[in-house]
Amino acid sequence: MHILQTIQAVRDWRRQAGRVAFVPTMGNLHDGHLALVREARQRGDAVIVSIFVNRLQFGQGEDFDSYPRTFEADRAKLQAAGVDALFLPDERELYPRIRQDFNVEPPHLQNELCGAFRPGHFRGVATVVTKLFNIVQPDVACFGKKDFQQLAIIRAMVDDLNMPIDIVPVDTGRADDGLALSSRNGYLSADERAEAPRLYRNLRQMHDALAAGSNQYADLEAAARADLEAHGWQVDYIEVRAARTLDIAHAGEHQLVVLAAARLGKTRLIDNIEVQR
Amino acid sequence: MHILQTIQAVRDWRRQAGRVAFVPTMGNLHDGHLALVREARQRGDAVIVSIFVNRLQFGQGEDFDSYPRTFEADRAKLQAAGVDALFLPDERELYPRIRQDFNVEPPHLQNELCGAFRPGHFRGVATVVTKLFNIVQPDVACFGKKDFQQLAIIRAMVDDLNMPIDIVPVDTGRADDGLALSSRNGYLSADERAEAPRLYRNLRQMHDALAAGSNQYADLEAAARADLEAHGWQVDYIEVRAARTLDIAHAGEHQLVVLAAARLGKTRLIDNIEVQR
Repeated sequence: MHILQTIQAVRDWRRQAGRVAFVPTMGNLHDGHLALVREARQRGDAVIVSIFVNRLQFGQGEDFDSYPRTFEADRAKLQAAGVDALFLPDERELYPRIRQDFNVEPPHLQNELCGAFRPGHFRGVATVVTKLFNIVQPDVACFGKKDFQQLAIIRAMVDDLNMPIDIVPVDTGRADDGLALSSRNGYLSADERAEAPRLYRNLRQMHDALAAGSNQYADLEAAARADLEAHGWQVDYIEVRAARTLDIAHAGEHQLVVLAAARLGKTRLIDNIEVQR
Repeated sequence: MHILQTIQAVRDWRRQAGRVAFVPTMGNLHDGHLALVREARQRGDAVIVSIFVNRLQFGQGEDFDSYPRTFEADRAKLQAAGVDALFLPDERELYPRIRQDFNVEPPHLQNELCGAFRPGHFRGVATVVTKLFNIVQPDVACFGKKDFQQLAIIRAMVDDLNMPIDIVPVDTGRADDGLALSSRNGYLSADERAEAPRLYRNLRQMHDALAAGSNQYADLEAAARADLEAHGWQVDYIEVRAARTLDIAHAGEHQLVVLAAARLGKTRLIDNIEVQR
């Protein structure tokens, strides 16, 4: 596996890599990331993964400094998974002037759901993904559905700015008890970890009610919120939305997604579930 | 010369075009554009020109509707100049949802100089150029120095967003009396056309004073403004700036540029001159 630390090294590698599938990550890799890599291997002649903890998408008071950096373990996992190249830039390589002068500005969706609680987050995501796309020039890029709003924004961005890249969504990996795999699960205490699957259990219950035809979105949202709050969670949001656009869902909508973000102690967990009906 | 009206047609053409040099235009082509084409022919195996009058970069009350569309004459000129492909999208092809949801947001320079008089203009330029770059995927793109601030913003954007494209600046074409070639010169009456070279004459005088060592930027700016206003011009700005960054020039700066925008009747003309000292 090639370890590429500079933009120039990526450009040199890319010239002879054929059809390239790309998996951008912030490291601290778990089985969810490895599912992205497996999908990428189906999609390209060569797979490149990036690891970059992107300061631009963290707000003040968020966990940029404490975000887990586990490079040696990540490298071993990627090597075992058959990755061809690992792009590992330092901050000076991607942000040589410290500040980023040009930003890719997403539409209003960036200020809803997670964006309402993380101002500037999706601008930072859209901007760094644009930079990484311009550096790697992949044919295909794989993103997890766990970050459903991020996936929606990146798909819309690629379409709206005519980026020549296929975006492939990959299903959320889950622990046996249903908890979505996430780097942030490592922040949970043993008690919190035992409690954490309640988020997905509530999403499943909402799924079943919606799939059975309920249009009582607000009632379902309130019931899930109440259950979580009764068990010590702080709920940022639980919302039923239209799956394709993430617009507010009207009654009778056929393709729905329920998205949620809630905090257990200091750890913020997000999850979602799609509903076809 | 291939006439390409769809994004897909450009992508198909591009796959076998080798090293591609790109000249984006809004049509109504004059010798200034053809100088860009000549430069492009030196830089690539194949030259592609786009003609698209980009609504996004025109403000309310500006000349989007009246901007000259001269397709047949443009096509003949490009064919004679040896252009390989002409990309000619309609608005629906570039803006299928009418609105543009994602924008490339330039830094504060977008609100200075021309940007102070044309709010949103450089956001519209940066966004459409990003879209065109993503469609054409050129190796090289040529831009005229007549639009010096636009060139500076595009160079900074390409650098800051890591776009894999060399930006080549091309000197301003001029009429014998010094007037910078511009599609908007066609708006001038005969009397205005006779008066128009005064703008460049003032820039030349400022150039000579600066090259001789003057640091009296404000005095030079005021004198040029007074001369133009005395002859019926409305001056938007005349400013001495640092040539590389377009920052405010400090005394003793070695690489300067004087930029100006002024209106004769309803026609807004811009020009600039670089000073090395």
